[in-house]
Amino acid sequence: MKIRARFLDISAEPLALMHAEDAAKIGAKDNDRVKIDAKASTTALLNVSDTFGSPGEVILSGVLRRKIAAEDGDEVGVSYASNPESVRSIRRKMDGEALSREEISAIVRDILEGRLSKIEISAWLTALYINGMDLDEIAAFTESMVDTGDRVDFGAASVYDFHSLGGVPGNKITPIVVSIAASAGLMIPKTSSRAISSACGTSDFVETFCNVELRADELKRISQEVGGVLAWGGSMNLAPVDDMVISIEHPLGINPRAQMLASILSKKLAIGATHLVVDIPTGQGTKVPTFEVAKEYARDLMGLGERLNVRVECAITYADQPVGNAIGPILEARECIRILEGDRHPSSVVEKACELAGMILEMGGIPNGGERAREILSSGKALEKFRQIVAAQGGDPGIKSADLVPGRHVADVASAKSGYVHSIKNKDIVAVAKAAGAPADKGAGVLLHKKKGQRVEKGDLLFQIYGDNEAKVARAKELAEKYQPCEIEGMLLKKITSVKTVA
Amino acid sequence: MKIRARFLDISAEPLALMHAEDAAKIGAKDNDRVKIDAKASTTALLNVSDTFGSPGEVILSGVLRRKIAAEDGDEVGVSYASNPESVRSIRRKMDGEALSREEISAIVRDILEGRLSKIEISAWLTALYINGMDLDEIAAFTESMVDTGDRVDFGAASVYDFHSLGGVPGNKITPIVVSIAASAGLMIPKTSSRAISSACGTSDFVETFCNVELRADELKRISQEVGGVLAWGGSMNLAPVDDMVISIEHPLGINPRAQMLASILSKKLAIGATHLVVDIPTGQGTKVPTFEVAKEYARDLMGLGERLNVRVECAITYADQPVGNAIGPILEARECIRILEGDRHPSSVVEKACELAGMILEMGGIPNGGERAREILSSGKALEKFRQIVAAQGGDPGIKSADLVPGRHVADVASAKSGYVHSIKNKDIVAVAKAAGAPADKGAGVLLHKKKGQRVEKGDLLFQIYGDNEAKVARAKELAEKYQPCEIEGMLLKKITSVKTVA
Repeated sequence: MKIRARFLDISAEPLALMHAEDAAKIGAKDNDRVKIDAKASTTALLNVSDTFGSPGEVILSGVLRRKIAAEDGDEVGVSYASNPESVRSIRRKMDGEALSREEISAIVRDILEGRLSKIEISAWLTALYINGMDLDEIAAFTESMVDTGDRVDFGAASVYDFHSLGGVPGNKITPIVVSIAASAGLMIPKTSSRAISSACGTSDFVETFCNVELRADELKRISQEVGGVLAWGGSMNLAPVDDMVISIEHPLGINPRAQMLASILSKKLAIGATHLVVDIPTGQGTKVPTFEVAKEYARDLMGLGERLNVRVECAITYADQPVGNAIGPILEARECIRILEGDRHPSSVVEKACELAGMILEMGGIPNGGERAREILSSGKALEKFRQIVAAQGGDPGIKSADLVPGRHVADVASAKSGYVHSIKNKDIVAVAKAAGAPADKGAGVLLHKKKGQRVEKGDLLFQIYGDNEAKVARAKELAEKYQPCEIEGMLLKKITSVKTVA
Repeated sequence: MKIRARFLDISAEPLALMHAEDAAKIGAKDNDRVKIDAKASTTALLNVSDTFGSPGEVILSGVLRRKIAAEDGDEVGVSYASNPESVRSIRRKMDGEALSREEISAIVRDILEGRLSKIEISAWLTALYINGMDLDEIAAFTESMVDTGDRVDFGAASVYDFHSLGGVPGNKITPIVVSIAASAGLMIPKTSSRAISSACGTSDFVETFCNVELRADELKRISQEVGGVLAWGGSMNLAPVDDMVISIEHPLGINPRAQMLASILSKKLAIGATHLVVDIPTGQGTKVPTFEVAKEYARDLMGLGERLNVRVECAITYADQPVGNAIGPILEARECIRILEGDRHPSSVVEKACELAGMILEMGGIPNGGERAREILSSGKALEKFRQIVAAQGGDPGIKSADLVPGRHVADVASAKSGYVHSIKNKDIVAVAKAAGAPADKGAGVLLHKKKGQRVEKGDLLFQIYGDNEAKVARAKELAEKYQPCEIEGMLLKKITSVKTVA
């Protein structure tokens, strides 16, 4: 039918809003697709209503204006369009079948180009969550995701990379690992993410002392000049379909294993990584609760590496409590830089960073990696390399930890009894740090004064809540009193080694 | 934060559109929820963008105007709101767990009240499709759906009802069944649906000769006066959550068994049915492909009946080809009324209607139900009752089949070779009838001249395509030539009994 078009900037999705009377005329229903014909043609998702809009008019989201080369008031053709073929493949995944490379690639492309609706993407992710994918499917999935974005070619024989599955708060090791590896002469163009549901992603704290929003050509130039880089992956067009998927996963609170693995590896393939070390934090309140699950992830990652021609090694790391003492952007940046400056504490951070950097060094042919990493760190060479990276990313070339000053509002949380710290609950610490304003408020977060297994006396300081905003700090303190993230018990149940790293 | 509101009638969902800058300030992401505070408070689904909308303004869908009692330009409070608890239950169903009565009821209520987004409802349906529900869950689900809508109380000890799982085209038996049962003195207030994906639902053809959009009080009055009624269920507020769910199922092409069973039974419970006969059409190209699957449905329906205090009996019926010869609103109405007038053909329709009516009669204590049903039909009493019902619903009290005239554009489809009709593909016949304009064009449809097992000579008429619009009929004919819905083979493979009814 021919109908008058009106454009409204209401959605990033290609939507067409029609009155029920008009929709019935073309035999289309709510959430169907329609073909829109003007100077050019496109497909849009139909929303039908008899309570808003009026017959004789189709409301199109603004993104379609350019696609069909039409203006407000133009007559456009609207007709029923069938679903894309990929909906059939989604249904096959619901039925527990394995999908072909072509089917997976069509789904990824259709998500990227807005041809699949939120309803269909949600069904896809739910089916993936429940029925999973085998490694051949995940490898095809990964490559399809790479194909949707740009690739960076460093013109180097070997490109090293490092990734943490995340889920443990306070994991500020990335700048240390990258600085050590680059200092040893390896090229390590590290892209990181911002927090999705956590209190502070790597990019959230790195951007407190230098620019992380680099273009692909800057990533390349800095890596070639300095050897290492600490960029935010989101500012480049690497496997962009991932970001579209995250916004659907987020409200459901799911991250299907196949999607998670393809997401990690696609970003590594896009920057041409040939060697990859993956940190798998394992423990209560993380994504990976047990050692058995961690081993499965490690096996899958290595199996995918074989299929995708990337050498992958994994470290299962202790994550029953936060890594180090600081959680939140400026607090984590300060703790991280202090270690680069030579501080031996918190030892959990120092140990974890050196062990993981050591694995990368060994992949690069440098023997006794962990030992060599400790030497590079204590010699001051890692700090020097770090400062070069910071300078190349527009930060202060003489950066020091004392420059980083957390929020001026501070609330102390003391122990209500004497005993031993029995547990520090990751999820609750994250909730408190977020309530204080992290990661958007850079000065907000939590600073732990006691870790698991330590003795406390009644009235001792357990942790401090920092923030840029007094009301938020007060709210965070209320939350801390409600959640009690540090549990104190009357006796030591078991001696906990401060860190356990398993290669 | 306080922000200026603008209302736009863009969605039936409670949406809030915010610029990414503002969303970041309140720590909310795309597809999160936000609390909106004005004179009253409510929750809306957040859509975030940095390409449309502008900072300092929140665009709210028109449905929220009344809910928060605000006007364009008013300052409203917007803050992050957590997901409803029911999202956790959806995730539990994804994990294959059984849900409690309370969890199921919360999901149903949250769908009804717009608290769950399309993303979440889609995940719910996908999880239901894959992981299913046990009968106790489905019974709770059914009761929760009843609770979302109105109930009609007929003040009768026994209320009879009849339902067909559908999926077979040409199944125009409902008016015959209802007229026979009502003529025998049983109260049978039948509500039907319009086509969802088929060429013609019961209400689509009944409304060609009387009004089907009845209010609950009319349904009650007519049933009490005449004994039977032929209403469209959608015009009453019976288990309304079902319609919201259908619009999400439709693009996915799924109808999870639990949802389907709860949907059927909730509408029966809402009108207080005490006795229910369910027709399970079984065959290629229907919802129920095999006898084994049909038996599972029958067992489930009877098990649910026990739990819900409704006596349920099921008939597994032959559905490898359309029922009777006519597919499409006026064509089906004409065929149906001809049978009430005494026509013995098509015998498949006569037999099926009488067998099912007979089951209802027997449930009502009338012995030899099938025989009794045939007597009521051939005596003209069913026609008399039918005309009373039609008159009560505002139709012509002297209605006759000759009043129903199908579309004036007709295309003949002849056999390209001699042989026997080997199959008539339900889905293809439906596609052709829809292409011709059914169900929106009342005169459109397909009239079969040969059924399975019949001998045809080259050039014999196989079927005719009717339509109100010449171009649509031409397009339907092209489709028929492409699909070849009637397969002709050189020899009779197997003699097919015209109908097989299994109680």
